[in-house]
Amino acid sequence: MLLHSIKELREQRKEWKNLKVGLVPTMGALHEGHLSLIKKAKETCDKVVVSVFVNPIQFGPSEDYDKYPRTLDKDLELCNKEGVDIVFAPSPSEMYGEGNRLSNDTLTYVCPPFFYVNKLCGKTRVGHFDGVCTVVLKLFNIVQPDFAFFGQKDAQQVVIVRKMVKDLNVPIEIIQCPIVREESGLALSSRNKYLSEEGKKDALVLSKILNNIKSCYKKGVVDVAALKETAYSFLTDKHDLEYLEILNKDNLEEQKNADDNSIVLIACRVDGVRLIDNTYLKD
Amino acid sequence: MLLHSIKELREQRKEWKNLKVGLVPTMGALHEGHLSLIKKAKETCDKVVVSVFVNPIQFGPSEDYDKYPRTLDKDLELCNKEGVDIVFAPSPSEMYGEGNRLSNDTLTYVCPPFFYVNKLCGKTRVGHFDGVCTVVLKLFNIVQPDFAFFGQKDAQQVVIVRKMVKDLNVPIEIIQCPIVREESGLALSSRNKYLSEEGKKDALVLSKILNNIKSCYKKGVVDVAALKETAYSFLTDKHDLEYLEILNKDNLEEQKNADDNSIVLIACRVDGVRLIDNTYLKD
Repeated sequence: MLLHSIKELREQRKEWKNLKVGLVPTMGALHEGHLSLIKKAKETCDKVVVSVFVNPIQFGPSEDYDKYPRTLDKDLELCNKEGVDIVFAPSPSEMYGEGNRLSNDTLTYVCPPFFYVNKLCGKTRVGHFDGVCTVVLKLFNIVQPDFAFFGQKDAQQVVIVRKMVKDLNVPIEIIQCPIVREESGLALSSRNKYLSEEGKKDALVLSKILNNIKSCYKKGVVDVAALKETAYSFLTDKHDLEYLEILNKDNLEEQKNADDNSIVLIACRVDGVRLIDNTYLKD
Repeated sequence: MLLHSIKELREQRKEWKNLKVGLVPTMGALHEGHLSLIKKAKETCDKVVVSVFVNPIQFGPSEDYDKYPRTLDKDLELCNKEGVDIVFAPSPSEMYGEGNRLSNDTLTYVCPPFFYVNKLCGKTRVGHFDGVCTVVLKLFNIVQPDFAFFGQKDAQQVVIVRKMVKDLNVPIEIIQCPIVREESGLALSSRNKYLSEEGKKDALVLSKILNNIKSCYKKGVVDVAALKETAYSFLTDKHDLEYLEILNKDNLEEQKNADDNSIVLIACRVDGVRLIDNTYLKD
């Protein structure tokens, strides 16, 4: 069932009072990564809601909000195939009101802590995680799920959403699902659509760098600086590295020495497309 | 029943699944104003929770957090007399975690819009309404009430909480109750305890100024500047006026001419004690 209005969704939700409800929040352009979240939600819950909303307030002014792929018909088809109960696809004005300037002058925002935001993607995408937390909390309040499903691909996002849930006592359990990759190793992303064939090949360095760091770690290298150094042999002039960090996976604290609680995160622009990837050293 | 832990409260809440639950959030030091909220909650709901929590993050560094009156035994007695089902009195560490620095470096905050905050009490109490919205949303998520009751006395607070509820799609109805006054006209406040006998008399100017503005309005004066002018004849060197504003009651927009949607708000320091009061022009 496709719903566009908050009111309709709430009415439906009331009928599910005694059922376990799962929410998979997405921006659409669904791929196998999203489908893995949906499958997990179907396993865990009686009813599954997938939201499809390209959230304007998490895009910066120079980012790809207008260009971001919108494929609702195909998304619907995929959701139906997976047995999703509701696809919730509100308009921006349904979510933020008619004629509102989308800024903290006129709207209430949820602001995750500076310590979690001022690194990795948050450093270049100023305001991004305020926008993410705000829309996620809105969706939580609209759908009132028991469980919400997020992909490890956006690792900083999941850490920040978990932190929000804890700090604001949100009565929802967050379930994280592993990254889904192409056979080549490329992490699935809606933004992969922007890549040329050659770009797709160049994009493989992200997963290669992560795998190499992991194998060095498994061989006993723990010094973070040394582990990061290993990346440079993979990079060419096709790659514009934004960050490569090895941090504590739960609170994103810096580490001098990597350990089984470390996560390696990379962001790199390839072929003009900003890509991210990550891996846990323990896996 | 007195509960200190979030876990116990949530367990109790589960047993009320099919009942209408009301929350009256307070900082304790309960007076007749609070009791009017509790009475309204008892009328409206099957079960009533009163929270008693002096919220550190809504006090500025130079404000009266340590000095703020704490009278839990008396509060409990009053709540029992009113038939309150749960008094929820968490410690600061229960609410914000052990050893957390209470700042937006390390905690997720709810930030109401600048336009609503940058006036009236928000102008001098920097960060106050971020602290209020954050704790109110936490209490909402912990108690999951159907209704929450706030006093008109803190008029800017209610407007901002309503705005948060709307902006974040919080599934709770906010009910506002009128100001309760002493026979003298003085609006009840936990901070009245700080006043000397003479201070209490000097404090009457707040309600006198409001009443006079209202009676001028009823006689046909609508020019906001002229209405505000009428206040000065009441003020002496005992009064340190912080603000006197006439604004739209729903969105706190400035008005050139008062109308039936106007609210008059005053803050004044008397005897070293900061007091606030307000009235609707329509009443």
